[in-house]
Amino acid sequence: MNSLPDLRSLSPVSARMCLAVERFCLHRLALPHGMRLVLALSGGADSTALACILHILSPRLELELFALTLDHGLRPEAEADARWTQAFCAWLGIPCARRRVDVTGLAAAKGWGLEEAGRHTRYALLEEERRAQKANFVVLGHHAGDLSEDVLLRLARGTGWPALGGMAARDDARRLLRPLLFTKPQDLRDLLTECGVSWREDASNASLNFMRNRLRHTVLPLLRRENPALDRGMAALWQLAQCDADYWETLLAEALAAHPWHEESQDGLPALLLPRELLAGLHPAARLRLYLKAVRLLVRQNTGQTGERSQARAHTLLELDAALREGRGNTRFQLPGGIEARLKSGAVRFVRTMGLEKRTVTAARGQTSGGQTP
Amino acid sequence: MNSLPDLRSLSPVSARMCLAVERFCLHRLALPHGMRLVLALSGGADSTALACILHILSPRLELELFALTLDHGLRPEAEADARWTQAFCAWLGIPCARRRVDVTGLAAAKGWGLEEAGRHTRYALLEEERRAQKANFVVLGHHAGDLSEDVLLRLARGTGWPALGGMAARDDARRLLRPLLFTKPQDLRDLLTECGVSWREDASNASLNFMRNRLRHTVLPLLRRENPALDRGMAALWQLAQCDADYWETLLAEALAAHPWHEESQDGLPALLLPRELLAGLHPAARLRLYLKAVRLLVRQNTGQTGERSQARAHTLLELDAALREGRGNTRFQLPGGIEARLKSGAVRFVRTMGLEKRTVTAARGQTSGGQTP
Repeated sequence: MNSLPDLRSLSPVSARMCLAVERFCLHRLALPHGMRLVLALSGGADSTALACILHILSPRLELELFALTLDHGLRPEAEADARWTQAFCAWLGIPCARRRVDVTGLAAAKGWGLEEAGRHTRYALLEEERRAQKANFVVLGHHAGDLSEDVLLRLARGTGWPALGGMAARDDARRLLRPLLFTKPQDLRDLLTECGVSWREDASNASLNFMRNRLRHTVLPLLRRENPALDRGMAALWQLAQCDADYWETLLAEALAAHPWHEESQDGLPALLLPRELLAGLHPAARLRLYLKAVRLLVRQNTGQTGERSQARAHTLLELDAALREGRGNTRFQLPGGIEARLKSGAVRFVRTMGLEKRTVTAARGQTSGGQTP
Repeated sequence: MNSLPDLRSLSPVSARMCLAVERFCLHRLALPHGMRLVLALSGGADSTALACILHILSPRLELELFALTLDHGLRPEAEADARWTQAFCAWLGIPCARRRVDVTGLAAAKGWGLEEAGRHTRYALLEEERRAQKANFVVLGHHAGDLSEDVLLRLARGTGWPALGGMAARDDARRLLRPLLFTKPQDLRDLLTECGVSWREDASNASLNFMRNRLRHTVLPLLRRENPALDRGMAALWQLAQCDADYWETLLAEALAAHPWHEESQDGLPALLLPRELLAGLHPAARLRLYLKAVRLLVRQNTGQTGERSQARAHTLLELDAALREGRGNTRFQLPGGIEARLKSGAVRFVRTMGLEKRTVTAARGQTSGGQTP
C-alpha cells in the first residue's frame, strides 16, 4: 500500500470513528474549515493514529497539516522513533520537523523533575513550531483513556470543580486542540492495523516512575473492572465540567462588568482589589471561582500543579470565604505561589508577595517534581 | 475505669478532635442544642468512637442520646457484636435497642444484592427507631476516609457534579447526620485507646466481595501513596460540592418561582412539564440540574444508584439538552428508572412510563446488585 485508504474505503467502524472525530472538531471544538495545524507526533500508536485520521479528514475539513517530532534524549531508541516518525510523515506527505532536546540537562539546570522538564520543553517547542508554520493550533493525540487518567490525577491532586473534569479539548490561550478526547484508544489501534500502519512502542509509557503511569497501570484497571463503561462516565463528567466552566466564566464576566476589580501595584508587584460591592453580590460558589480567577491572573498559571499546591489553595480559599461570611476584619491568608489574600471591611486584596523569577526558583528548590511552570 | 473521661481529662489531641466535631455540628450542620439523636452502632471502631464523642459532648450540646444496633445475621459473630454494643451503651448510660434482620432472606425475596438489601434494611430500621424515640436525627459514624471512598465510588459509577462531592453531612429529608465526616479514622481509634474502650472488628469490612471494600483496600491506598493528604483534598472538594449544591438549588428555586413547572398526569402516571419560558431563560449548566431535579421528583430517588443508571442518565440528559439547543422538534429520550423525556417546541415533558412497583421489579431482575431502592 502506498497511501492511506480514504474514508469510503475504510471499514464501517473506522469510518464512523473518523466521522465522530470530524463532528467533535466541528461541533465540540467549533473548528472552522481551512485550519493550519501542527501535529505533535511521537511515533506511538495514539499520535500516529491522530495523523492518519486528520490526513483522512483533511480534504473534507480543508486542513493543512504539519508535524513536529521530538527526541527527548531520554531513551536509547528515541532518535530512531523520531526518524521513523519523519519517514511516516513523508509517506503521508506531511512536512515534519524534528528537534532534539536535552530534557535531563534542563531538569538538572532548573531543578525540575524529568516529567515536568519534558512537558515544559514539549509545549514550548510545539508553540515555536506553530508560530514558524503560521499554524492556527497545535494538535495533541490525547484520547478517552487519557481523559479518565487526567480526571483521576486531578482528583488525587485535590483539584476543585470544574477543573476536576479534565483537560481542555480546545485551549485558545495555549493554542491547543485535542480532537481525540472522546475516542477509545483501542479504536485508534484498530484503525492503524486496518490501514497497515505500524507504530513504535514507547517503553517509558510502562514505567512506574511517573505518577501518571502508575495511575494508568494500577488504579484505572481496577476502576474499569468495577465499571467497564468508566470512560463513558468520565466523558459525561467532562462535558458537565465544560458546561459549568462556561457558566462560571459568563457569570463572573457579568459580575466584573458591573463591579470591576482594581488592578494595583504593591511595592512594584501586581495586586488585585476585589471590592466589597462585587463580593457582597455573589453567592459563595461564585466567589470561590472569582478568587481563583484573581489568583490565576496574578501568577499566570496555565499548567499542571502539584497536589500540595492546588489542595493548599482550595483549602485556604474556603477559609478566606468563611472569614468573609463571618464578617471578620483585617485577616491575611497565605496562598501557594507567593500570593497573599488580605481581607478587610468586606473587600479582598490579592497581593503577589514575591516576583515570578524568585517564585520559580523557590519552586525549583522545593522537593516536589511538579512545581509550577511560570 | 467506670466512665469515659470528660473533655478536660482528655489528651489535647483527643480534646481538639471532640471540639472539632462540636464545631462541625454547630457550624457545618447548623445543629441546635437539645437534639434527641439515635446513634447507629455496630460495635466497630468508628461508631463506637461516635458514641464516645457524642457522649463526651452531650452536656455541652444538651444532647439526648439513644442507639440502635442491628444484627444482620450475615456473620456468625454478628449477634455477639450486637450484644457487646448493648453492654457498651449500658456502661455509657445510652438506651440501646437491638434488632435482628434477615438480610439474606430479604435479598433473596426482593432479588437484591446483599449490600443493597443490608443498606435498605439498615436505614429503614434506623428511621423506625428514630420515630419511636421521637428523635430529631439518626447519626452515622462515616469519617473522612469513608468520604474519600464515597467520592471515588461515585466517580467510578459516573456520578455528575455536585453529587460527585460525596455523601451529605446533614440530610433533612432522610433525617441523617454524619458529624465525623471531617474526622480522621486513626484519630477515632486513638480516642478509643486513650479511653480504654475496646471495639469489635467486622471481618466483612475486609471482604473484597463488595465494591466499596475493593476500593477501600486496593484503589485508595494507591491514591494515598501518590498524595498522603488525599483525604484533606477530598474534604475541600466536598465543601465545594456542598456550596455548589446550595447554589443550584437556590437558582432553580428562583427560576421555578418565576416560571413554574406543571405537575400533570399521563395515563394515571405522574408527569412534569418544563415550559419553554423556563428552559429558555437558563444556561445549559442550570438546565441540566433542572432535568435531574425533575427526574428525581418523578422517581423519588434518594439512595445509591448503579453506575449504569447514573451514567446512562447523565449521558441522556446531555443529549436532551443538545437537542433542545439545536431546536430539534418532537424527540423522545429514554432515561433509566422508566422515565421518558419528550422534547417539543422548546418545552420538555418528563413522563413516568411505568409504575414504581413495576420499575422496582424490573430493577430487581437486573443483573446488578445495586438497583435503586424505591
